[in-house]
Amino acid sequence: MLLKKKIPISYVFGKVKYEISFVLIYATLIGVWDKYFHTINIHIPLSVPMILGTVLSLLLAFKSNQAYDRWWEARIVWGAIVNDSRTLTRQILNFMADPYVSVNVKNFQDRFVNRQIAWCYSLGQSLRNQIPTQQLDKYLEPHEMEFISKHDNVPNALLQLHARDLKNILEEGQINKIQQLALDETLTRLCDSMGKCERIKNTVFPATYSLYIHFSLFVFILLLPFALLETFGLFQVPMIATIALSFFLIEKMAIHLQDPFENKPTDTPMTTITLTIERNLKQMVNDNKIPEKVPADKFYVL
Amino acid sequence: MLLKKKIPISYVFGKVKYEISFVLIYATLIGVWDKYFHTINIHIPLSVPMILGTVLSLLLAFKSNQAYDRWWEARIVWGAIVNDSRTLTRQILNFMADPYVSVNVKNFQDRFVNRQIAWCYSLGQSLRNQIPTQQLDKYLEPHEMEFISKHDNVPNALLQLHARDLKNILEEGQINKIQQLALDETLTRLCDSMGKCERIKNTVFPATYSLYIHFSLFVFILLLPFALLETFGLFQVPMIATIALSFFLIEKMAIHLQDPFENKPTDTPMTTITLTIERNLKQMVNDNKIPEKVPADKFYVL
Amino acid sequence: MLLKKKIPISYVFGKVKYEISFVLIYATLIGVWDKYFHTINIHIPLSVPMILGTVLSLLLAFKSNQAYDRWWEARIVWGAIVNDSRTLTRQILNFMADPYVSVNVKNFQDRFVNRQIAWCYSLGQSLRNQIPTQQLDKYLEPHEMEFISKHDNVPNALLQLHARDLKNILEEGQINKIQQLALDETLTRLCDSMGKCERIKNTVFPATYSLYIHFSLFVFILLLPFALLETFGLFQVPMIATIALSFFLIEKMAIHLQDPFENKPTDTPMTTITLTIERNLKQMVNDNKIPEKVPADKFYVL
Amino acid sequence: MLLKKKIPISYVFGKVKYEISFVLIYATLIGVWDKYFHTINIHIPLSVPMILGTVLSLLLAFKSNQAYDRWWEARIVWGAIVNDSRTLTRQILNFMADPYVSVNVKNFQDRFVNRQIAWCYSLGQSLRNQIPTQQLDKYLEPHEMEFISKHDNVPNALLQLHARDLKNILEEGQINKIQQLALDETLTRLCDSMGKCERIKNTVFPATYSLYIHFSLFVFILLLPFALLETFGLFQVPMIATIALSFFLIEKMAIHLQDPFENKPTDTPMTTITLTIERNLKQMVNDNKIPEKVPADKFYVL
Amino acid sequence: MLLKKKIPISYVFGKVKYEISFVLIYATLIGVWDKYFHTINIHIPLSVPMILGTVLSLLLAFKSNQAYDRWWEARIVWGAIVNDSRTLTRQILNFMADPYVSVNVKNFQDRFVNRQIAWCYSLGQSLRNQIPTQQLDKYLEPHEMEFISKHDNVPNALLQLHARDLKNILEEGQINKIQQLALDETLTRLCDSMGKCERIKNTVFPATYSLYIHFSLFVFILLLPFALLETFGLFQVPMIATIALSFFLIEKMAIHLQDPFENKPTDTPMTTITLTIERNLKQMVNDNKIPEKVPADKFYVL
Repeated sequence: MLLKKKIPISYVFGKVKYEISFVLIYATLIGVWDKYFHTINIHIPLSVPMILGTVLSLLLAFKSNQAYDRWWEARIVWGAIVNDSRTLTRQILNFMADPYVSVNVKNFQDRFVNRQIAWCYSLGQSLRNQIPTQQLDKYLEPHEMEFISKHDNVPNALLQLHARDLKNILEEGQINKIQQLALDETLTRLCDSMGKCERIKNTVFPATYSLYIHFSLFVFILLLPFALLETFGLFQVPMIATIALSFFLIEKMAIHLQDPFENKPTDTPMTTITLTIERNLKQMVNDNKIPEKVPADKFYVL
Repeated sequence: MLLKKKIPISYVFGKVKYEISFVLIYATLIGVWDKYFHTINIHIPLSVPMILGTVLSLLLAFKSNQAYDRWWEARIVWGAIVNDSRTLTRQILNFMADPYVSVNVKNFQDRFVNRQIAWCYSLGQSLRNQIPTQQLDKYLEPHEMEFISKHDNVPNALLQLHARDLKNILEEGQINKIQQLALDETLTRLCDSMGKCERIKNTVFPATYSLYIHFSLFVFILLLPFALLETFGLFQVPMIATIALSFFLIEKMAIHLQDPFENKPTDTPMTTITLTIERNLKQMVNDNKIPEKVPADKFYVL
Repeated sequence: MLLKKKIPISYVFGKVKYEISFVLIYATLIGVWDKYFHTINIHIPLSVPMILGTVLSLLLAFKSNQAYDRWWEARIVWGAIVNDSRTLTRQILNFMADPYVSVNVKNFQDRFVNRQIAWCYSLGQSLRNQIPTQQLDKYLEPHEMEFISKHDNVPNALLQLHARDLKNILEEGQINKIQQLALDETLTRLCDSMGKCERIKNTVFPATYSLYIHFSLFVFILLLPFALLETFGLFQVPMIATIALSFFLIEKMAIHLQDPFENKPTDTPMTTITLTIERNLKQMVNDNKIPEKVPADKFYVL
Repeated sequence: MLLKKKIPISYVFGKVKYEISFVLIYATLIGVWDKYFHTINIHIPLSVPMILGTVLSLLLAFKSNQAYDRWWEARIVWGAIVNDSRTLTRQILNFMADPYVSVNVKNFQDRFVNRQIAWCYSLGQSLRNQIPTQQLDKYLEPHEMEFISKHDNVPNALLQLHARDLKNILEEGQINKIQQLALDETLTRLCDSMGKCERIKNTVFPATYSLYIHFSLFVFILLLPFALLETFGLFQVPMIATIALSFFLIEKMAIHLQDPFENKPTDTPMTTITLTIERNLKQMVNDNKIPEKVPADKFYVL
Repeated sequence: MLLKKKIPISYVFGKVKYEISFVLIYATLIGVWDKYFHTINIHIPLSVPMILGTVLSLLLAFKSNQAYDRWWEARIVWGAIVNDSRTLTRQILNFMADPYVSVNVKNFQDRFVNRQIAWCYSLGQSLRNQIPTQQLDKYLEPHEMEFISKHDNVPNALLQLHARDLKNILEEGQINKIQQLALDETLTRLCDSMGKCERIKNTVFPATYSLYIHFSLFVFILLLPFALLETFGLFQVPMIATIALSFFLIEKMAIHLQDPFENKPTDTPMTTITLTIERNLKQMVNDNKIPEKVPADKFYVL
């Protein structure tokens, strides 16, 4: 997630440097050719590119809208993961019957909560195409690590371990049947959130649509010099560059927003969110080893 | 689903080849007629087609929006099918009381999970108007194949078999009443997803609306040469072709997006999603015969 | 619901014949008057109607959007009715304890499922202002027919009969308390769907808004000839007719979409959907008298 | 809610009579001044107000959209109140164990259902800033009237009485624990609907936004005469009045839609809806004193 | 939340005073330079800034839309907090078995309800970056104050205390297992609302997008004088100021709406809402110390 402050100019314009260079060279060539050789006779009335410009504006507005919706949905899903992680912890802490505050129950709860933290990390890492089991040994027991190593989908395997634990404590009578239902519903919501992330990650935004916008944008830019040449001469170069810059920047922004799990500065800040979850959950179980907040020293957080 | 890379140009332009040929011939005829016979006196000010162009842009933006929403809803529904298949498997594995890990229970669970995989395949096949029972004998028992062969709606019949199994294990005491409720709710969600797919499949996008947009688009194209003829002469032909191409491509894209279950490259990738479900579910039940991932060697996945 | 094919031209243009006739006569009169009497001195620059045209386009786009949303919501609600009818049947078939497959239980289930089919028919008929009890005697018992005849709201009365039956089988011990909850939740969802249909049926789209759009559209059409007269002379008549046609068609389409329960070709196809429900439900209870699919021999289905 | 027919012209134009009078006087003054004194030299090209006009159109479209959403949400909430009132009645009638159809149970049910009707009336009245307890003595017992008289929020107090009754019949064994859960969930949904109405009632639409649109609209109207004066002379007066009328009417409509609980003709028809609820509920409990439908003899229903 | 009346002009224009001053000086400088030195030869046709103006209008409309959605979602979440606080109180009052209306139960209920009020205050204060425990000692017991002082996330800690209390009364047999489920679901909804507020608070609106709109707006303003100079001379200054004012005001409004928890006049009125909750809840438990409504004597409520 980009932060409000400190976004370097180089980051903003670096995204469109090839496109803008091409436009500058193209517009200059036409301007110079016209000035010194006077052989360009094509002068387009400004209203022709304006028709294309209106259509393009609408298409870009539509695309920005859909891209924003994907980005915002990704954030909503991770917000739900925060909520359900807290709910799961609250339930596991306050449902278990525990006549004398026993070491066994406390150990079980700690292990369960640590596994939930591991679930968040592994989901984030697998969405970013990193090794999903990386650093999970801090939170999991060896036999759990071995279990998940046999699965393609690590977060799904962790949910299964959760469910197996619930089955055990139900059979031991530490939770009742209704409480198992409530806990299972929380697992189901976590499973849904996981699936929603995978959906956003794996669904390509309609590719012909992106193609077509890119194509129209280039036609629009290629026509523009012929419409402005007569009035402005070489002064058209900065104007075309400015207009092109606007359109290219919006297009790029939409492209970044629509894929929020790519390990880029515009990502949903999954690592930061998971750290918050870890801090919250560990305070809830009175764990002392609470990790420090990471200071936001860059122009983005991951 | 179209993939980001490798979309052949022939695919993109093949969609509109008749329309574009017609526009090229039409614009050329008028241009040639005007150049050599000078008998065309109708010159329309550019602002007349511009009014139509603005209306058309808004209508196409609106239609693209609704088409995108249908396509995205279809994808959301299949995402929910992934989630609920995993949830159903997690529940059937971790709800059943099983004092000694018995062969019976394991067999029951395997059969149940295989039936869920069959449900996904049969839903995808019936949405694509293929034989819904095709290849299901890999996952179902003969008596189940016989049962579903009597039903029009195969996925619905499979849900009924699921429910009958749940009734049996409830009566045998292997799940409790509350667990039956939780499992039945998962079946209800699968039933809802199935119905939502059928709704998208069977609901024709308002037909007069599509008709009208097509009609306005042709009026717009037919007027355009008369507006550009005076300024551009024969050079109007490529310009009109370019503008027409933009509009036709958007219209086609909307038409493809709005029907996502037609066995076309723009479909919701139901086969791929079902394969993912099969792999996930079989790993959850420790099945060894996990099918290979299919490599994406085309420009789309089905 | 209009089908994709076979929509007769007369249907499309019949909707706006009065409006278009008026526009043709009006534009011709002005054109002729101007040509032969030369006394019309009012020539409006085209940009004045263009301002109105832009506003109108936005208003029509907005209205189409809301109308489409109502139409789509109506379809979604009927999709939910399909799903919940199947769910109710699945539950009633697989919840009831039935140590020996008894005739009594089978009879009860058949009667219950037939009543659900009757519910769908009566809801559709009452939304279309038809006699809601028409043809229900095929599905209901005489004492049920008598009960519902005392109620204004027939579908609501049928839900009450459902609920009464559930109370009876709970008291007889054929379902347990949790299953009653699950069945009651399905009834609640059906009750919600019914209420949503009534809401769409009974809520008039903001009337001043429709009035205002109609008024602006006429002002726009009345101004248009004065803007085109100078350039086109009598050739303005077909152009104005074409532009007016576009706007009137969109307006009509929105009006039709926004009221989807009026027994018109653009209706939500409630009869067809109910027939599908009947076929599905009867197959689920092994009923032999399954009604035939009705062939779509018109350009619409009801 | 305005009905489709019979909206008097005076109602439509009465909303904007001050604005339109001002515009007429202003435009006439400028026109006359220009005609007889020829001292106005400011002639603005039409494209300057057109920029403002485009922005204004978009802002008004956006505002209409949000206002419509508030109005539609208010209607959806009241639709949900209809549904949940029916559901509550169905549940209270069919959950209560009643070995012999006793007078006590029947009395309890009647009192409960009457209280639900009272809840609907009191909610509607308090949203319209009327006395919330008005006419409730027809439906409530004296001790209930006394209880609610001590509360600011009368509908909330009635829900509490509902909940207390449920507690009593649970303790008396007339409903079981699961049924209390189902009934309590219905109460929770009613509580949510009440809160949603209060949210819409109490949330001011962003005030700076309304202010700004009003301000831009006036700037636009004030500029318009200078743009049209040169071409039209005094004929500009009716044209400006027409254009201003369009914009003012949309603005007013949005203002009315966004506050649907103000005892105005554009309100959500809460009184009519509550009457429908009363009729439905009384038929469900076999009450004979069913109130008559009120004929719609005005151009609106409240 | 800004109220409808009494918004001081200084508040409205104070938001954009630097921007407008800059525009006034810039436009005046160019106007004066042109009038007295006649050395400015750049005259841009008005349609060039119009292209930018159309794109800008669409972008601002899109941004206003997203900002409004964030603001409205924040209000919806706080509306849900009102509803769930009432529901929680209704449940805790009417679920607890209490054969003789005992002092213990009454004390427990009072403490529970006070803690819920404290939860609302602490959530509001922590969202506004104030000390979250401020003034909570009025509602909490000393040992509760001590417990929450150890937590970063105070509202989350309070929910945990709620859950612990529920566990205790379940073990003491004052509520049954099903009622614990219902109460736990209410806690889960409160936990969700809390997480949604944190999501809105912590998610920066796509920063490049805001940057880019700001940049385009400045380019548009910088070009405008050159387009209007020729026609208007120095009279362009007020016109440009007016147009710039419109755009800057919308931009500012969007920026304020999108961050509704910043202790500014445009905030979601969390303090006022919490006061309403406090009054409602205390009346429900018959508490006498009901705080007074705070009169709205400013142009906003917090």
